[in-house]
Amino acid sequence: MQLNAGCELTFDVQSPTPLVLMLRPRSGAGQWIIREEYQITPAVNVTEFTDLYGNLCQRVLAPEGPFSIHFSATVQTADLIDVSPGAPYTPVQELPDDVLHYTLPSRYCQSDQLGDLAEQITDGVEPGYDQAEAIRKWIHTNIKYEYGTSDASTSAVDTASKRVGVCRDFTHLGISLCRSLNIPARMVVGYLYQLDPMDLHAWFEAYVDGRWFTFDATQEQPRGNRITVAYGRDAADVAFTTQFGPMQLNEMKVWVDLAQPDMNESEKKAEKAPTVSASVGSNQQTDGVV
Amino acid sequence: MQLNAGCELTFDVQSPTPLVLMLRPRSGAGQWIIREEYQITPAVNVTEFTDLYGNLCQRVLAPEGPFSIHFSATVQTADLIDVSPGAPYTPVQELPDDVLHYTLPSRYCQSDQLGDLAEQITDGVEPGYDQAEAIRKWIHTNIKYEYGTSDASTSAVDTASKRVGVCRDFTHLGISLCRSLNIPARMVVGYLYQLDPMDLHAWFEAYVDGRWFTFDATQEQPRGNRITVAYGRDAADVAFTTQFGPMQLNEMKVWVDLAQPDMNESEKKAEKAPTVSASVGSNQQTDGVV
Amino acid sequence: MQLNAGCELTFDVQSPTPLVLMLRPRSGAGQWIIREEYQITPAVNVTEFTDLYGNLCQRVLAPEGPFSIHFSATVQTADLIDVSPGAPYTPVQELPDDVLHYTLPSRYCQSDQLGDLAEQITDGVEPGYDQAEAIRKWIHTNIKYEYGTSDASTSAVDTASKRVGVCRDFTHLGISLCRSLNIPARMVVGYLYQLDPMDLHAWFEAYVDGRWFTFDATQEQPRGNRITVAYGRDAADVAFTTQFGPMQLNEMKVWVDLAQPDMNESEKKAEKAPTVSASVGSNQQTDGVV
Amino acid sequence: MQLNAGCELTFDVQSPTPLVLMLRPRSGAGQWIIREEYQITPAVNVTEFTDLYGNLCQRVLAPEGPFSIHFSATVQTADLIDVSPGAPYTPVQELPDDVLHYTLPSRYCQSDQLGDLAEQITDGVEPGYDQAEAIRKWIHTNIKYEYGTSDASTSAVDTASKRVGVCRDFTHLGISLCRSLNIPARMVVGYLYQLDPMDLHAWFEAYVDGRWFTFDATQEQPRGNRITVAYGRDAADVAFTTQFGPMQLNEMKVWVDLAQPDMNESEKKAEKAPTVSASVGSNQQTDGVV
Repeated sequence: MQLNAGCELTFDVQSPTPLVLMLRPRSGAGQWIIREEYQITPAVNVTEFTDLYGNLCQRVLAPEGPFSIHFSATVQTADLIDVSPGAPYTPVQELPDDVLHYTLPSRYCQSDQLGDLAEQITDGVEPGYDQAEAIRKWIHTNIKYEYGTSDASTSAVDTASKRVGVCRDFTHLGISLCRSLNIPARMVVGYLYQLDPMDLHAWFEAYVDGRWFTFDATQEQPRGNRITVAYGRDAADVAFTTQFGPMQLNEMKVWVDLAQPDMNESEKKAEKAPTVSASVGSNQQTDGVV
Repeated sequence: MQLNAGCELTFDVQSPTPLVLMLRPRSGAGQWIIREEYQITPAVNVTEFTDLYGNLCQRVLAPEGPFSIHFSATVQTADLIDVSPGAPYTPVQELPDDVLHYTLPSRYCQSDQLGDLAEQITDGVEPGYDQAEAIRKWIHTNIKYEYGTSDASTSAVDTASKRVGVCRDFTHLGISLCRSLNIPARMVVGYLYQLDPMDLHAWFEAYVDGRWFTFDATQEQPRGNRITVAYGRDAADVAFTTQFGPMQLNEMKVWVDLAQPDMNESEKKAEKAPTVSASVGSNQQTDGVV
Repeated sequence: MQLNAGCELTFDVQSPTPLVLMLRPRSGAGQWIIREEYQITPAVNVTEFTDLYGNLCQRVLAPEGPFSIHFSATVQTADLIDVSPGAPYTPVQELPDDVLHYTLPSRYCQSDQLGDLAEQITDGVEPGYDQAEAIRKWIHTNIKYEYGTSDASTSAVDTASKRVGVCRDFTHLGISLCRSLNIPARMVVGYLYQLDPMDLHAWFEAYVDGRWFTFDATQEQPRGNRITVAYGRDAADVAFTTQFGPMQLNEMKVWVDLAQPDMNESEKKAEKAPTVSASVGSNQQTDGVV
Repeated sequence: MQLNAGCELTFDVQSPTPLVLMLRPRSGAGQWIIREEYQITPAVNVTEFTDLYGNLCQRVLAPEGPFSIHFSATVQTADLIDVSPGAPYTPVQELPDDVLHYTLPSRYCQSDQLGDLAEQITDGVEPGYDQAEAIRKWIHTNIKYEYGTSDASTSAVDTASKRVGVCRDFTHLGISLCRSLNIPARMVVGYLYQLDPMDLHAWFEAYVDGRWFTFDATQEQPRGNRITVAYGRDAADVAFTTQFGPMQLNEMKVWVDLAQPDMNESEKKAEKAPTVSASVGSNQQTDGVV
C-alpha cells in the first residue's frame, strides 16, 4: 500500500536547547521511502548521523522561541506482516553477532527480572515464534490500554505489576518477556495505518527461525502497513526527539493516509494527537507512542 | 541556497540484472535534504544499506525490459565553500583513525606512482592547504577538459600522461597527487549548481588542518552550492549505479535549479546529459560524472 | 608500569550452554597489551566479534561438565590517571556523534530519575570535571562499601536509596548522576593494581572538555595502573561472562602483579576472589566486579 | 594444530616516521589465538584501532634510529581448509551487504580489465566454486613463481601480462579474475605452516555458496594450518606495515613452528626471510608476502 504519513511537532523553547531527532525512516525490509519532506522552522543548521542501530538521527540546537518540525513521507508498505506459527527458536549459539545484544536487559526492559512471568505465560508452548505470540496475546488480554497511566520512567516491571499502559509499555513488556526466554527482541517505533486514535506508535520484533518477526500487543490481529522509523533496545534508544534542556512540546499532529494518485497533499488532513506529557529528567525524550 | 536537483536514468535490461544505486544524499555538513523523491519504474523490491563510507545504497534486481529511475531532491546548500590559504598540513600521526585509509592508493588513484609529479607541482609550497590548492590549480591549467577522451578504466596515471579527461579524471588525479604527499583525499560525487553543461559531477576533498576542504579542478574559482551524494576512495566506490549484468543506459537527464517558493516542480526543466559510454568489465559502473 | 594480570574462572555446566566472554583487553589509550594468553578447558570452538562499543567478545558453547577459562596478560599501563580540576563541561551540541548515546539512561543507570540528587550534590560546583569529581567524592563518602549487599538486579536507583554496594553499584550511581547532568558517562571494567581485596573491578569515565576522564568512587585518591577490558553503558553491556543456560561459577581467581624481568609466571601467585552470587534471570551475567 | 608463529622486523629510521602496523591476528573462523606477544623497541606510545574490514591496526610514531618489532603468537589452526567442488555461485542479489564491495575493482586488482581472461580460463566450468578453483589452478600452472620480479606497484594486469611474480601477485590476479566473474574475492595475509621458503604469506578467499572459501595459487594442493592476520581488498589495505616517511626495513624474520607441550620458546628458531625491496611512493607499504 502507498501511504502518506507524517507528523508535526510544535515546541516552545525557553533557551537554546540541543535536540536529537529520529524522524527519518530508511528504506529497507518491507518499506520503500518514495518521498520524504522534512522542514524545521525556523531554519537551523542540522547535522545527520547514523546511530549504533543504523537509525538516521538529526542534531539541532533549537533556538529560543517557537520551534516546529514538520515531517512527511510517502511510503510503499507491506499490506501484511509475516506470521509463522511453529517457527522454531533460534539457539543463542546460532544468533548473528549483531543480534546478540538484543538478548540483554535495557533501561525499560529488565528481562532479568521477568523470567518467572515469561515461563508462566509460555508454559507448554513450543519454543520460538509461538512463545513470542503467546506473550503478545497475553499482554493484549491482560494489560489494560489506557492513556495517562504511565510516563517516561515507566518500565516493563512497572507495567507487569500495574497491568495498565500504552503502546510503549506494551512493547517494553513484550520485549522483556521474550528476552527472558533468550529470544532477542527489539523496539520499533513508527507509524501504523488506521491506528485509532492516530498517533506515533511502537511495537516489537522478536528474532526466531533466523529472522525478525513483527508483534504488536496493542492489536487484536496481525496488521501490516507499518512504517518503521527506528529500531533499538527500548524507548531510551528510539525516542522521536531527545532534548537536552528546557523546551515544551505544545502540540503533536500525526497522520497516516492512503496515498491517492495525484493527491500528494492528502496528509494535510492530519489528525491531532494528544500532547505528550513532559518526561522526567534532564534529557527528556519524546516518544508519545501509543 | 535552496536547489531542486535530480536525475532520471533510463535503461534497457536484457535479462534480470542486480543493480546497486547510490543516489540518495544524506543531510550533513553543509547540506540539508528538505525533500526527496525516488521512483523506480517498474516498481521492484528495494533494500537499502549503508556502505563502508556511510553512503546510503539501494539494491534492486532490475527486471528484463525498460527500467527507469527518477530521483529528485530539494536541498539547502551552502553558497560558498570554505577556502583557507595557509591552513597547515595535518601530520599523519594526528589523523583520525577513520581518515587514515584515504592516504592509501586505490583503483584509479595510484598515489604510489605519482610522487615525483606531486613534488614538482608543489615545489616551494607550504605543506597543507596550499599544496592541495596548487595541485588543483595545476590540473585545471594543464589538463584539457574534453568529453569522450576517457572511459571507465582510465586512471590517474593515464590522465597524468595523456593530460586530457573529464571531471572524474581531474578528480582522480587531484586525489592521487594529494595522497602522494600524505594528504588524505577522497572523491565526492554529486551535483553542482550552474555546472555547464549540466551533468552529474565529481570533485575531491583534502584533509588538512584537522578537517575536509573542497577542491574542484574543473572550475576556475571556488564555487559552492554543491550537493554531495556519496564519498569514497575513487570512482569504484561511488558509482551512481553499479550493474552486474547486461543492461544499457539509454538516457540520463540531470538537473539543478533554483528552488522558488511555490514552484515545487521546477525540476521538470531537465537538461539532457550525454549518454554514458558503456564501461569495460562485467560489473559496469555508471558514473558519467563530468 | 608493567603488570601481569589475569583471571581464572571455573564453572560447572549442567547442559551445553552458550556463553559470551569479554576478557580480552585491547591496546589503546593508556595501555599496551604486550602479551596475552587465553586458555579454555576443555578446548572448544571459539569465534570472536567486536560489539557495538568496540569490545572484543568471544562466543563459545560450553559443554556439559567442568569448564574453565584462564586469561592472563602483561600490560604496560599508565602510572597516573589524568585529573583536570576546572576542565569545562562539553555542551551537548559539541559532543561527538558516537558519544551521544552515553547521555541516555540504561538498564542499571536510570539517569532520568536521579536529577534531583545530582543537582543537590553539585550545587554551586562549576559545570564539567568538577561536577563529575563532586559526584565521585559524594559516592565515596556516602555509599558504604560492603560485599553481598547487592546483586545482578541492583540498579543506581536502588543504590541511591540503600546507600550500600560494591564497585559495580558505585559505578552505576556515578554514571547515572553524571548523565542526569548531561555529562556522558560510561562503565569500564578491568583490573586495578593493588586493589584490596583483589578482584575484577569496575569504574566509570565521564566526558568533559572534549575527552574521557577516569573516575573511581571506590578509591580515596586518583589511582593509575588500570587495565581496561571493556567499555559500555552499564553492567548489562560489559559483563565478563554472559551465560545463556544452566552453569555455575564455582571459583574465580583474579590477580594483578608487578611484572618483573624474567618472571613471566608471576601471575601464578593468584589471589582468590569470592564466588559471584548467581544472578537472576535466564541469561546470567558474571561481573563480580568490586 | 597448535602453531607458534611470529615475525621480527628491524628498521632504520632516518627521522620520526608515522607507521601503521597490522600484525595482530584476531580469533575467528578457524583460528584461536591462545597466546600473543608484541614488543616494540624502543618502547613508544601505541594506539590501536579497528579498520574498515575489522582488522586490528596499531599506530606508532617510530623515533629516529634503530627500531624493531617482535610479534609472536601461539595459535590453534585448522589442519584442513574446506574444499567444496560444485558449490554453486551466489547470485549478486543474494550477497550480504558487507560482501558486495569485494566485487569492485581495487588498486592492484583491476577486475574491470580482466574479464576476457577470466572467461577464457573458466570456459565450460560450472559457476561458483569450480570457477574460483579453475582460476587458482590456472595461475598456479601459468604464472611463474620468482622472487624479485615484481614490486610494490605491480598489479594484476601486470602479472597477467608478465606471467611471473610472488604470492602477492598470484593473489591479486586470482582476486581480479574472480571479481570479473562477479564472485566476491578478498586478500588474506598471514602465515602458512611449512611454507618454503618461510615468509609472510598472502592468499585469497572467494565467496560462493553463501560463505568464504580459501584459495592459494602458490600451492599445488589445498593446505590448512594458516594464520590469518588481516583481510582486505588487496595489498593496499593489508600491508603488515604502512610507513609515512623515511625508514628502511633492514631485516625481517618470520617463523611458523609446531607448538610442543612445554616448549614455549620454539619460535626462537626463526628462519630468516629476504629483505623486502623498498616500495615506490611516499607511504611505503611492507608486505613482503610470498
